[in-house]
Order: sequence, then C-alpha cells, then structure tokens
Amino acid sequence: MKIIAEIPYNGSCSKIKLFPKKAIIPEEKVLLVFDSSTAQLFPDRNPEYSLVLPPGEAAKNWVSVERIISRALNLSLGRDGIIIGIGGGVVTDVTAFAASLYMRGCRLILVPTTLLAMVDAAAGGKTGIDFLGIKNLIGTFYPAEEVRICPELLKTLPTSEYRSGLAEVIKHAMLNPGKSGGLWDTVTGKRTEILARQGSILEKVIIDAVKVKVDIVSRDLKENGVRAYLNLGHTFGHALESATNFNRWSHGEAVAWGILKALELGERLSITDKQWADECRKLIADYGFEIITPQVTPAELKKAMTGDKKKLGGKLRFVLMRGLGEPILQEVPEKELDAVLKSKVR
Amino acid sequence: MKIIAEIPYNGSCSKIKLFPKKAIIPEEKVLLVFDSSTAQLFPDRNPEYSLVLPPGEAAKNWVSVERIISRALNLSLGRDGIIIGIGGGVVTDVTAFAASLYMRGCRLILVPTTLLAMVDAAAGGKTGIDFLGIKNLIGTFYPAEEVRICPELLKTLPTSEYRSGLAEVIKHAMLNPGKSGGLWDTVTGKRTEILARQGSILEKVIIDAVKVKVDIVSRDLKENGVRAYLNLGHTFGHALESATNFNRWSHGEAVAWGILKALELGERLSITDKQWADECRKLIADYGFEIITPQVTPAELKKAMTGDKKKLGGKLRFVLMRGLGEPILQEVPEKELDAVLKSKVR
Repeated sequence: MKIIAEIPYNGSCSKIKLFPKKAIIPEEKVLLVFDSSTAQLFPDRNPEYSLVLPPGEAAKNWVSVERIISRALNLSLGRDGIIIGIGGGVVTDVTAFAASLYMRGCRLILVPTTLLAMVDAAAGGKTGIDFLGIKNLIGTFYPAEEVRICPELLKTLPTSEYRSGLAEVIKHAMLNPGKSGGLWDTVTGKRTEILARQGSILEKVIIDAVKVKVDIVSRDLKENGVRAYLNLGHTFGHALESATNFNRWSHGEAVAWGILKALELGERLSITDKQWADECRKLIADYGFEIITPQVTPAELKKAMTGDKKKLGGKLRFVLMRGLGEPILQEVPEKELDAVLKSKVR
Repeated sequence: MKIIAEIPYNGSCSKIKLFPKKAIIPEEKVLLVFDSSTAQLFPDRNPEYSLVLPPGEAAKNWVSVERIISRALNLSLGRDGIIIGIGGGVVTDVTAFAASLYMRGCRLILVPTTLLAMVDAAAGGKTGIDFLGIKNLIGTFYPAEEVRICPELLKTLPTSEYRSGLAEVIKHAMLNPGKSGGLWDTVTGKRTEILARQGSILEKVIIDAVKVKVDIVSRDLKENGVRAYLNLGHTFGHALESATNFNRWSHGEAVAWGILKALELGERLSITDKQWADECRKLIADYGFEIITPQVTPAELKKAMTGDKKKLGGKLRFVLMRGLGEPILQEVPEKELDAVLKSKVR
C-alpha cells in the first residue's frame, strides 16, 4: 500500500496509506467500529467483531465510548489488540478516543469514509467526544498507527457530505497553496473534475490536502503553535454549529461560512488583501456553498464562541489571512468582532 | 520547595516536591478537587473553586469525571487552567484522568494525602477510572506537572490506610533495596519509628520509596518493559480486590497478600530464594498485615485474573523475585498458578 505521509509522534510514527477497498478489513480478529451507513459498505464484515454506532453527531458521546470498550473487553482484546474505526469524523473521533482510553491505550487503525474525515479528522491524532453542547470538549491526542485512505469509498457519498469535505480542502489550499500545479491550482482550475469526483484528480486532491495537514501537524503535535492555523474558519464555524445544536448546517457549510467571516474580519482590520478575499468568496460560491445569513442572533453566536475551547485565558484569537498561504493568529478587539457577527454575510 | 525527583516526559518534566501544608493551595484561581475526608484537611479552601467527591473507590467512575469537567468549564478554565487533585489514589487518579481529557489536556497538580498515593499513585502519570468491575480499565498516561508531597498530612491518616501504603513501601524496598542505609535497611531496621510515623524517618521513607518508583518509571514511561516490575503482588492483589468487589480488603492488604502469593509461586518454580522469601514473610507479618486465607474460591480469583489488564495476548505473566532487588517477569504454567491459588497462604 502506498504511503502518502508519515507523522512522527513521541518516538513512534503514524502512517497514512492509500488502500484498495478489498484490503481494508484485515483477516485477524480485531474490533471493527462502524456507523449504520458505513457498515453497509462492508457487507462481508464479521458481525461478531463489528460494533455499529448510530449515525450522526449524536453518537459522539460517552455512551458510544462505553459500548466500544465493553465490546473490546468482551472480545478479550489486550493492550496489543487492534480497534479499527471505519466511518466519518464522528466514528473516527469516538473510536480513536475509546482506543486511547482502553487499558490506557490499545492499537488503533482509522479508515475515514468521508472526504472530510480523509483530509481532516483522521490524520493528526485529535480524538474526542462532545459534552455540554461543546464539540470535542473531552478528548485526547492519540494518533492512529495507520490511517487507511480509499478514494473509491467516496463514490457513494451523498453530495452534501462530499461538499462538506471540500470546505476543508479549500481551507487547506488557502493555508498552503503548494507549488505550481499544487493544491490551490487544482482546486481553482479543476473544479468540474473535482465536483464530478473524477478518479485521478480526486486522488491527487486528497493526497495534497492530507499533506498540508500533515505538514502543519508535524510541526506542532500538541497544538501549541502553528497548528492553530488549521482552525481557519472554525472559531466562527463551531459557534454557528453549536448555536444551531449541530443539526442545521454541516461542518463544511459552517466552516465555509466561518472562512467568509474570517476574511471579512481580516478586511476590517486591514490585514486581508481585498482582491484575494473576493477571489476566495467567488471560489467558495462556485463550489456550491449556498451560504445565507444564519438564523441565529449575533448574541447567540458570541455566547457559543466564548464557550469554544480555542479561547485561551479569556481572550478570543482568530486565524486571519493576509493573502494566499499567509495565515496569522490574532487577538481581535471585541468591537470589530461584534461588527462582523452583525453583518450579513457576503 | 525541595525537589525530590523529576520524571522526564515527552519533552516536558514532572516534578515531585516536598511541600509544607500551608503552601499547598495556591493563591490563584484553580479548580481544587477533594473527597469528603481531604476537604476537611483544608477548611480555608474557597468553596467556589472546590469540588468535593464522595469518599472511596465508588467515586472512581465517569460521573466524577463529568463533574470535574463541568465545574472546570463553569469556572471558564482554559487549556492553560490548573486542576489540583487533593486526596488519596482515588481522587488523584480520577482528577488526573479528567485533567487529561478536559480540552484534550489542561494543567495538572496532584497532592497525595495518603502514604499509598504519595509513594505510588501520584507519581508516574497513570490515570484512570474503574469500569465493568475492573480497576483502571479506562485511563490515560498523563503525568502531573507537579506532585506536592506533605508528610505532615499523614499524621491524621487512619491506621488501616497508613498500613495500606506500607505494603507498597515494602514492595519498593524488595524491588530496589538501595545502598547501605537505603530503603530496605530502613524498612527492616526502623519498623517501630515507621509505624509511629516519626517525622524524619517517615520523610526519608517517603523520599526513598518515591525515588524507587521514579527510577523505574523514568526507564519505561508507557509500561512496555521494566515498569511491569512495579506490579509485584498486583496480579494476585487486583484479582482478590476484584473478586471481593473492592470492599473487603484495602489495596495494601491485597498487595501484601499478592506479594506472599508471588513469593510462593516463585518458590514452586525454583526461582525465589527460600530463605529470603521467609524473611519477607516475617517482615510483612511484623508490619501487622493480618493475612488470612481470603473467603474467595480459587476459581473466582482466576476468573478475576483473566479480566485483569496485565494479561497480554491471552497469557498471564507474573512478577517473581529471585531474591532482594532481583525481579523478573515470567509466564507461568497454569498448573503451578492453580496450585498457588488453592494453597492456604502462609
């Protein structure tokens, strides 16, 4: 299997590999965790070794963790036992969290089945569950020993979920455009092929987007510095998701909206180049994100934001863009934030 | 404050320090976690920043973790906020576990208030809660940035709890006796002073016992090798605790019984020096451990043992002693184990 990237981590190494679908589930007896959608992708799975979680964000809770750990114990997995999480970000986050806790950490393999999970959730070692209405309030850093990426799994992904992943791909391209012919060029120049999920282009986009994430994560495994750049659009986006109980907007839609808000905030502070901001707005619209003003008040958004865990010592910091490939992390005057929260999104 | 020992950990460092009681609780606003006994030791604590857990092993569960995390959020602690766990092993384990999960890890200080927690639980970075009747089935490795040891807190400790800690001290002395005048010599030669909790001797015993643990832990942070030696007496001991629902024997009593069983097993396998084993048996009896045959069947003990997380790949391994300071890790034929489980303890 082709290795896309490797992330060093405390002496060991997390490997991200391209995998054909038929090779994903190993012969050995390991605990497989699915949700009800992804279980259908693997009809030949052994039910005795399979645990199927309910679909959606609601499964990202302690009850799921207890189910995974109970089943692992039931199967007599030891610390050297393997748990494989096969699904979108919810399944990979909650499975990785459970594996990080079972006997203080057992072996872990992740198989992301959505574009979002492939380019974001599965790589980088963040695990977690939601608590008190806050996403990932509880979690650990625990990189999978292997992340198995299989682009053909995306063929049957619903359009809305595929688009949700594209928001993160666009974000990665903005943060690190790559050289000529790199991620930014592909995202801006091959939109039709990407939206049609054309095999070779799709594989290239996934590989390049994963590499952007791995490059940043490798420089900052515990999120003390540059890794914060990956939160572009997320302080706004998480607030929107949280204020709408995570059921009105997909993560990608919320992030796309958040990127627009971050661009707007950067412009107000004379940080972001206006021409490039316009280019990004057009790009996001061209990819079909129908962003309207969310039916949430600025006060609700702000309340959700102050509960967001990116807050440090009471101050809100935002990732803003000077221009292509130039993120900065910035504290923002409350007045400017309020103005952006009140404005209609463009 | 005098530094007793330092444990390097992934680039940072965990410090164990001697602290006078009046300096333990800092001026800054931090979340303090007590149990109902230890809360009484600090009547001046600020109730707004204090969380008091119920006493005993029953508090070592997910409900306590949720309470700690909810309160941390309620106090608007960020990732750079500090949680201090003040208590015995239950409080330090569950507080450390919660701190390791809150926002994927916030700052952590531990103040062990029992001898057992001082020489064992608080140092070394193991955190955990009980689940499905198995101790520490769920947990993380997350060393406190500081462990504050205050021997004067032991003055009011109930005798049974003090003795429980002495079992771990004896275990540490067996594993690593130190030079002339070291831990083994103190434990064997100053029994009266130790049982009377005489100030200077007590401080020396604690410091020397902590150093044995730190020395072993520093060589094996994730328990892949020599750290297993610290489990001397624990595979038997945990099985006894588990089979009696953790409410019949103290951890120390169970470990003392487990050490006797490990000596017996070592003798059966011609590994343990018989004369030294007799010496250890006398020492354990002299410290007042009234070990009788537990009212549990060998079958119940064995069942509890196979659920113990020290089991690896289906095989049970035991820490056995050749003689003073000479532990080995050994797979044991089932026949010999059965014989030892059936025998009356001597």
